[in-house]
Amino acid sequence: MQSLIIMVTILGDNPTVDAKMVAENGVKKWQFGLNEALAVAGSLSIRGTLSKVISCVEEAGPKPMVSFGNGDPSLFPCFRTTPIAEDAIVEAVRSAKHNHYSPFVGLLPARRAVAEYLSKELPYKLSPDDVFLTSGCQQAAEVVMTALARPGANILIPRPGFPLYEARCVVHDLEIRRFNLIPEKEWEVDLDQVEQLADGNTVAIVLINPNNPCGNVYTYQHLEKIAKTARKLGIMVITDEVYGHIIFGNNPFVPMGVFGDIVPVITLGSISKRWVVPGWRLGWIVTTDPNGILKKTKVVDSIENYLAITSDPATFIQGAVPQIFEKTKDGFFSKIIHLLREDAETCFNKIKDIKCITCPHKPEGSMFVLVKLDLSCLEDINDDVDFCCKLAKEESVIICPGSALDMKNWLRITFAVEPATLDVGLERLKSFCQRHEKQSDK
Amino acid sequence: MQSLIIMVTILGDNPTVDAKMVAENGVKKWQFGLNEALAVAGSLSIRGTLSKVISCVEEAGPKPMVSFGNGDPSLFPCFRTTPIAEDAIVEAVRSAKHNHYSPFVGLLPARRAVAEYLSKELPYKLSPDDVFLTSGCQQAAEVVMTALARPGANILIPRPGFPLYEARCVVHDLEIRRFNLIPEKEWEVDLDQVEQLADGNTVAIVLINPNNPCGNVYTYQHLEKIAKTARKLGIMVITDEVYGHIIFGNNPFVPMGVFGDIVPVITLGSISKRWVVPGWRLGWIVTTDPNGILKKTKVVDSIENYLAITSDPATFIQGAVPQIFEKTKDGFFSKIIHLLREDAETCFNKIKDIKCITCPHKPEGSMFVLVKLDLSCLEDINDDVDFCCKLAKEESVIICPGSALDMKNWLRITFAVEPATLDVGLERLKSFCQRHEKQSDK
Ligand SMILES: Cc1ncc(COP(=O)(O)O)c(C=O)c1O
Ligand SMILES: Cc1ncc(COP(=O)(O)O)c(C=O)c1O
Repeated sequence: MQSLIIMVTILGDNPTVDAKMVAENGVKKWQFGLNEALAVAGSLSIRGTLSKVISCVEEAGPKPMVSFGNGDPSLFPCFRTTPIAEDAIVEAVRSAKHNHYSPFVGLLPARRAVAEYLSKELPYKLSPDDVFLTSGCQQAAEVVMTALARPGANILIPRPGFPLYEARCVVHDLEIRRFNLIPEKEWEVDLDQVEQLADGNTVAIVLINPNNPCGNVYTYQHLEKIAKTARKLGIMVITDEVYGHIIFGNNPFVPMGVFGDIVPVITLGSISKRWVVPGWRLGWIVTTDPNGILKKTKVVDSIENYLAITSDPATFIQGAVPQIFEKTKDGFFSKIIHLLREDAETCFNKIKDIKCITCPHKPEGSMFVLVKLDLSCLEDINDDVDFCCKLAKEESVIICPGSALDMKNWLRITFAVEPATLDVGLERLKSFCQRHEKQSDK
Repeated sequence: MQSLIIMVTILGDNPTVDAKMVAENGVKKWQFGLNEALAVAGSLSIRGTLSKVISCVEEAGPKPMVSFGNGDPSLFPCFRTTPIAEDAIVEAVRSAKHNHYSPFVGLLPARRAVAEYLSKELPYKLSPDDVFLTSGCQQAAEVVMTALARPGANILIPRPGFPLYEARCVVHDLEIRRFNLIPEKEWEVDLDQVEQLADGNTVAIVLINPNNPCGNVYTYQHLEKIAKTARKLGIMVITDEVYGHIIFGNNPFVPMGVFGDIVPVITLGSISKRWVVPGWRLGWIVTTDPNGILKKTKVVDSIENYLAITSDPATFIQGAVPQIFEKTKDGFFSKIIHLLREDAETCFNKIKDIKCITCPHKPEGSMFVLVKLDLSCLEDINDDVDFCCKLAKEESVIICPGSALDMKNWLRITFAVEPATLDVGLERLKSFCQRHEKQSDK
């Protein structure tokens, strides 16, 4: 009511012009409205999908919620970060030396620390100038997608992949071409398809290793093949290694930067996963490009230009990075890996026991596994989204539907939770499936 | 050399395709390159301009650098933030309750705290749902500019203003229309020009209050006129109040949200300036819109859609916000204001003494003043950029050329520095001007 009265008052001020603004039904016409491209981009986010699934949970339901949605175990006491990292932050704050704006590329000591950290596993030494600090790997992806978005350009993105890349392409009008990862081949890249999809306007191929959502870790040989294919096509490799070192299978973690001599590589990463501090928002873009091609072609300029107009990670968190990298003990990392290995094992074994869900490949890295839903043995379930909503409603268990990753009728399960929670959630998943099993199959 | 050898090896692998990629001069042809729009956007950033000016400082120069460039006094001991804010951060980190990913709109207690903080000065109460947390006011501006960038839309931006707005418009293809602020009228908005510039595709007018770079604070009456004009035009008001409460003249600070009943207002702000912690990266977008027009027209959806695909401020910093707002003592704020008032006074008085520079309006808010350069009384100075570069070279004093703000032959001086530094810098500025004064004038 109040708004109406005020409108009338204002109308009184300038009847002619304001009358124009009032449509037939008496409602004022405002000139702003929905941004359609953002509506598409927003709908692509896993966050968006998960919040829809979560909204299916019965508020008054008898069961506490168990989420296998996000790759974020930080709230479980067993996954608490190392006190060394906390100490480094506290010292940085108490010093009052890092309250200032950061240079847009990041603080030099932090860039140097990242360069040294990543150089350990490369055949050449990175310089701090190769490193750009970002607000998590998420902003790193944003910056790189934006930097590459020239009119007419297209980019090769894996299916399944991480929807953030697609979302950013939509916002910046970078054409997306999806290549498949092959479940039967340990989720390797379909390189023949990559060659078919690429053309003279293709600028890059995106890779996620260790892989979210598939849980695989690429071999040296396969990565080398990807590098050579990219070189042949004249495109760079963008490698999301946010799960770098989060491995617990047979394949070692090989950073794509190892092949930076073959093809220019942009490596994206963060401390979110390995230190279990995704809320700290500290990531990086690193050019692993010993031949300096990304400088010569001015891709580095584009990255810097965009960084100059975006917000930076908190300066004192950057200030803490050298100490976090130097002082964190191997024991902390191996404790986390041990937990994740047990979780992956439990998850794989329990899923084997569930009819209607099959896991093509035992997870050996990241925090996820992608499993196939067999709708033919389920009653009254239409698709993966329906499955996840009903599961949320009946069992208060949250799983990400494959549709969010362009893999209809698959499910992404995050096993990175406390072991007891994992057991409970998987038991509920099992009884849900049993309850919805086709009568004829029972 | 190494790269050449490897290239040859690879060429050997697949001579036909790779041969195609090698141009006549033997250099491999890569398909990626500069993003021209970002080059334009990047060139608009103050950061970019300032780093060019800084590069003019003689490395081996006898004088320590004095910067009047950025609005960031945090490194001066007298401007150190309150220990209460530091304590809040330390507690949030030590609790280990805020290491997780944040909801994309921000943590609820922090949103509630911002709503309460801003409601104190509004005729109605904001709800936490009106508040979206961002990585500083910078990301707030990014989000809002992106949300509004529909095909064909245009936006009204002040001249002089803060180039970040322009840069973001360039990235998202939102047409910029610049209206003037009138120096002779205490930098008020030229509202006649606003009406002339607006058309059926105009979506918003941007305002900065207290004003960077002009140092003025708008009166209640002028803000009300702006609100009414915007309403008449059917456009919203975006008000950058990052310098909210940073006032030391006669005009009180009136938040634009006071007029949210007349026209939908989006308020952008942060803790960067008032708490002198720009490196903490905690800001907000607030819809001060009691009639819910921004919800109905789905502008809020666009903001949320974009937030869903961008990085958030660090969760533990969000976690500290309620305590920072609750516990900071008025004494801290008044100490900062006292320092800034003295600085503004010193700056204004010393500049009066400098021939060739005139200040149209004594600063009464923000951390800046915009002064006019009179080239006619200077020898061998071509323009404002030349002035700033020579000043940097000869005196190691950094000032932002007006060109960076689309105000050629003006200078933006940040007086928010330690008083002793201010004295030194202004003395050097004065002797620089004297040295370059036209002989005939002396
Ligand atoms: C593949 C992938 N890339 C990037 C990110 C974002 O990571 P960050 O927390 O560093 O922004 C995630 C987060 O889950 C991810 O799974
Ligand atoms: C007018 C204006 N808006 C926004 C910002 C960015 O502020 P924040 O540090 O909150 O990102 C600044 C910083 O100087 C500014 O002057």
